[in-house]
Amino acid sequence: MAVAGLAIFMQDTSGQRLQTALSPWNSDQEGEELYRMVSELYPICRSITGDGVRESLRLLQRQAPLTLREVPSGTKVFDWAVPKEWNIRDAYIKNRRGEKVVDFQESNLHIVNYSVPVRKKMGLSELRSHLFSLPDTPDWVPYRTSYYKEGWGFCVSQHQLESLVEGEYEVCIDSTLAPGHLTYGELRLQGATDDEVLISSHCCHPSLCNDNLSGMAVAARLAHHLSERSLRYSYRFLWIPGTIGSITWLALNEKYVSRIKHGLVLSCVGDAGGFTYKRSRRGNAEIDRVVENVLKHSGGGYRLLDFTPHGYDERQYCSPGINLPVGCFMRTPNGAYPEYHTSADDLSLVKPMSMAGSLHHLLQIMTALEENQSYLNLNPKCEPQLGRRGLYHQVGGTKNAAAEDAMMWTLNFSDGAHSLLDIAERSALPFATISAAASQLENAGLLAKVGGARS
Amino acid sequence: MAVAGLAIFMQDTSGQRLQTALSPWNSDQEGEELYRMVSELYPICRSITGDGVRESLRLLQRQAPLTLREVPSGTKVFDWAVPKEWNIRDAYIKNRRGEKVVDFQESNLHIVNYSVPVRKKMGLSELRSHLFSLPDTPDWVPYRTSYYKEGWGFCVSQHQLESLVEGEYEVCIDSTLAPGHLTYGELRLQGATDDEVLISSHCCHPSLCNDNLSGMAVAARLAHHLSERSLRYSYRFLWIPGTIGSITWLALNEKYVSRIKHGLVLSCVGDAGGFTYKRSRRGNAEIDRVVENVLKHSGGGYRLLDFTPHGYDERQYCSPGINLPVGCFMRTPNGAYPEYHTSADDLSLVKPMSMAGSLHHLLQIMTALEENQSYLNLNPKCEPQLGRRGLYHQVGGTKNAAAEDAMMWTLNFSDGAHSLLDIAERSALPFATISAAASQLENAGLLAKVGGARS
Amino acid sequence: MAVAGLAIFMQDTSGQRLQTALSPWNSDQEGEELYRMVSELYPICRSITGDGVRESLRLLQRQAPLTLREVPSGTKVFDWAVPKEWNIRDAYIKNRRGEKVVDFQESNLHIVNYSVPVRKKMGLSELRSHLFSLPDTPDWVPYRTSYYKEGWGFCVSQHQLESLVEGEYEVCIDSTLAPGHLTYGELRLQGATDDEVLISSHCCHPSLCNDNLSGMAVAARLAHHLSERSLRYSYRFLWIPGTIGSITWLALNEKYVSRIKHGLVLSCVGDAGGFTYKRSRRGNAEIDRVVENVLKHSGGGYRLLDFTPHGYDERQYCSPGINLPVGCFMRTPNGAYPEYHTSADDLSLVKPMSMAGSLHHLLQIMTALEENQSYLNLNPKCEPQLGRRGLYHQVGGTKNAAAEDAMMWTLNFSDGAHSLLDIAERSALPFATISAAASQLENAGLLAKVGGARS
Repeated sequence: MAVAGLAIFMQDTSGQRLQTALSPWNSDQEGEELYRMVSELYPICRSITGDGVRESLRLLQRQAPLTLREVPSGTKVFDWAVPKEWNIRDAYIKNRRGEKVVDFQESNLHIVNYSVPVRKKMGLSELRSHLFSLPDTPDWVPYRTSYYKEGWGFCVSQHQLESLVEGEYEVCIDSTLAPGHLTYGELRLQGATDDEVLISSHCCHPSLCNDNLSGMAVAARLAHHLSERSLRYSYRFLWIPGTIGSITWLALNEKYVSRIKHGLVLSCVGDAGGFTYKRSRRGNAEIDRVVENVLKHSGGGYRLLDFTPHGYDERQYCSPGINLPVGCFMRTPNGAYPEYHTSADDLSLVKPMSMAGSLHHLLQIMTALEENQSYLNLNPKCEPQLGRRGLYHQVGGTKNAAAEDAMMWTLNFSDGAHSLLDIAERSALPFATISAAASQLENAGLLAKVGGARS
Repeated sequence: MAVAGLAIFMQDTSGQRLQTALSPWNSDQEGEELYRMVSELYPICRSITGDGVRESLRLLQRQAPLTLREVPSGTKVFDWAVPKEWNIRDAYIKNRRGEKVVDFQESNLHIVNYSVPVRKKMGLSELRSHLFSLPDTPDWVPYRTSYYKEGWGFCVSQHQLESLVEGEYEVCIDSTLAPGHLTYGELRLQGATDDEVLISSHCCHPSLCNDNLSGMAVAARLAHHLSERSLRYSYRFLWIPGTIGSITWLALNEKYVSRIKHGLVLSCVGDAGGFTYKRSRRGNAEIDRVVENVLKHSGGGYRLLDFTPHGYDERQYCSPGINLPVGCFMRTPNGAYPEYHTSADDLSLVKPMSMAGSLHHLLQIMTALEENQSYLNLNPKCEPQLGRRGLYHQVGGTKNAAAEDAMMWTLNFSDGAHSLLDIAERSALPFATISAAASQLENAGLLAKVGGARS
Repeated sequence: MAVAGLAIFMQDTSGQRLQTALSPWNSDQEGEELYRMVSELYPICRSITGDGVRESLRLLQRQAPLTLREVPSGTKVFDWAVPKEWNIRDAYIKNRRGEKVVDFQESNLHIVNYSVPVRKKMGLSELRSHLFSLPDTPDWVPYRTSYYKEGWGFCVSQHQLESLVEGEYEVCIDSTLAPGHLTYGELRLQGATDDEVLISSHCCHPSLCNDNLSGMAVAARLAHHLSERSLRYSYRFLWIPGTIGSITWLALNEKYVSRIKHGLVLSCVGDAGGFTYKRSRRGNAEIDRVVENVLKHSGGGYRLLDFTPHGYDERQYCSPGINLPVGCFMRTPNGAYPEYHTSADDLSLVKPMSMAGSLHHLLQIMTALEENQSYLNLNPKCEPQLGRRGLYHQVGGTKNAAAEDAMMWTLNFSDGAHSLLDIAERSALPFATISAAASQLENAGLLAKVGGARS
């Protein structure tokens, strides 16, 4: 079994090269490892605060040496305050016969996230005002939260709801909502420069696999692979609760914000759908163009969306006073698959090879960011004679036609005004092909990096 | 009966708001009133000068307090001179038996506009060189003029032409062409600033309803409605003879030209067709963008045309030395409907609800011009917490989703570099929806107008 | 027989005008003359150096007084050196019975161009490694070269190849490869200014008609026609061996390079296909826009291609350190017709009327370059009164509608910021129509050239 996107990548002229640059890559093994991680994280009840987040981040530490950060409740973060910490041990609804008709132990989706403690008896009609279900998909349990308004509720399948008979019910929510901390995970890989690439994934959803155990796991493996490379950029990985987490990080780390030169939010990267990239607010940032180039040449279908002020933490990274070049990398986007925010976003929705493919494309994207720069053609007047340098085949050889094509484009547009990415776009060739051609030409003494070699 | 465009407008989130801002609006009543006006104006023989124009303008004074301006014949206006004044009392062609075979009293279209006085007998072949007909639509009488070359002629149906037998005819044109005045109507509504919006409609066509009694009437009712509002801009309405009228006004009012910030020529706004907007010469002026936004969200089909140096008085307003941001607002454009410039452009071609719909869309356009400006997000770093301000629904409420959507767009792009119109375009939302969101956010203390409040 | 493109051109409003400006034009005669030239050049064995080039250029001298330039072998030209001169008298392969099974005298394509001298006997298997054929088109002989790697070979049809039996063969190549010269043709027509238009065609291919005897002949006739006109620009014509020829000219004439304001490479202009224009590297240079305008209004299909660093000598003219506005004018482009670089690119592939049509469109293009400039509307405020200047028809005349249309566009956009080419593009009218309108308006005192009359 091999990921389709990978197979195609390996055939292109740069395949050989990236293989060397990367730690040994095996898409089957990588997919299995990612799926194993997601399976391990799946049962944990996460929220925007609490022990579930801590436990999840500690599991990720086995992949990448991230640090757990704790921010006290009440800390002012821009227009918001860090909320009280929520923890839950148990929750159920018992019928008159003492049978649990809804049980948190079966699925943590049954509880409205951030429900306050309750221990109370009530009739069906009062109970019903606290129950949420999905009439159109009667087997599925919805995912609901009530972070910023104290309340409580249970999420049930439509079948469960309809099976409830008149009578008294015992409701128990053994939770605590009290001053504590907001917890997030952070990992920074130091590169040759302090300029940073930000990789952010939300870690607050409970038992939902695609949204966003897939993003959390892929980010951890991405960090693992990058940590084994010699890097131009520094990389900052954040595993944070959605919205309040990115707001908290930005508010407490304003002095580092200007270092972030490129970034991606990772979410929903595990389903079987094609890739979706939502551009940064700037719309034409280098990250936007790099992702477009990689997806265009990925061999599969993909969608590009312009920025909108909805979605994930790109909303905060792209707020007008922050305005970072951060896009959102997904497969099927939030809201566009029926299982979204329901119990059907389970271990059957995410695929090992989808996650491995997401990771591999992210590595290609990071490689392009690392390698993109401008070169100068050292023989800019007319073409240099490639033949006597062994770069051109005589008497009609066609073996190396793609590489020769890339060399011609790279020579012609290495005028100081075009980066390798510009040339890849203009030639409609994969960035990796152009970058490989630039290396060949640099080795032959025909190109030089603008601004000298990267240290 | 309700105008379709209106019904749609009322459903959007800003409907409520515009209703309040406007004087009470009843599309049926409005349509009836406009149709009544057109019916009253229809029989009058207008031209580029003369008593027909005066009589028409006096009828419009019942709707809006416009002033009649008189400019003497011979007045030099740029490359032109105001022509002699033309008036006509009667005209006919009698056959040998003394029967009127063509009679001005039946339709003023029968006379070539600006025909010099004639009282003469002649044979059919001489007469024929003065007769104009439309072979392809044999029941219709064409509309012809000879403003700048002295001559005379009759316009007849093809059937009339073919029924003429050999023999002598008596031709009578009881007209005068003599020094006098060019007359136009002008109305200025003073707003908070001296910056002006120009609304221009040509008033020189005789018994032709769509072109342009519809434009004359809709302009008058537009003036009526705007006169009841508190206005940011001043509005200048002109009812002028085509070409020479706009040239005359521009030549005699050069000092005011630079005050005109936006403008529309109104013509052919009464037929049953969808809207057509011909952009100003600038092509991307605020008026061009506002009209496009309103039409895009009007719920009906519409056409956008780039500027060409043909058409109505936009030719003069958009001449290279004037170059005002003035477009042309129409339904079916000149030349694009078969009845154009024929007797079939009669009271059956124009529809009450079409005219009411034109007026209502013009009011939306003026409202957008009035309300468009830039705001500044006062909490630009990350999203403000809408929930604690009562602007956001918890636990999945969807009732106010469109308004929340508009708020997110407005907050994200109120960075000082984007006007409300920019945001409406980027979000693909109606301007009115964005403007309503801006008001809500301003009331909540989250936005402030750039440059302070509008006085 | 008349060229379709011509017929259409003659109908447009400027046809009359260009007819006057040009020497008498007869498309049939012109086509016959071009075909005669190609027929005469066809048998000569050309290469990038040698007597075949000299003989070909001397034949062209009968059309246009070009000069033969000689550059010694070994001359350093940028990254290259002028190669040794190659000449060939005979070549053949004889079988055991002494029969010539491959014979240079039958077609000079049989020899790999630049083959070193050989006189040797060998078996079939050794011979085969020096034979090139086209299995998919077994009747055709391919065209091959080995300019920069010493070697030898024969090109044969697949049928010839398959008919060779085991046994000994006698191979004779009576060629010389020795220090000598690279020869090219150059012609400069002095215009009113030293600003130059470059017309370049490669003259190195042996018996191949479309590629590029067509370009060589059309260039010579273009020079002939332009030499009879009073010119604004100076024109430089080059007939040069591909790649090394343009590199040589550019290296030895660097001081003149900056004079070149527009340019075209001519190749493959004789086949029956529609026009193809490959834009200069700049992409939106005046030459690119002029060619697009002329082709758009040519009445036939055409293709526009963006610059790529492949193709003909535009690769050198558009190298990053030269970057001239030089495009490539073709009919069916290199590689896009099956006969390309085979013996089937013979006298049946090129058509007299195709070559005449190519020439006529090139004359239109040069006329547009000559005439393009900016005018100023001397009555910029509102329209001038065309009627009293006899430029406008009263009472609905339609005879001159196209010319009036062009006058309105030209007046409206002659604001100093728009050239005639800008106006032609904006109005979607042929450049020649706009240019004719500008002349009429200038004669009527309504327009003046920006910067005064052209000297």
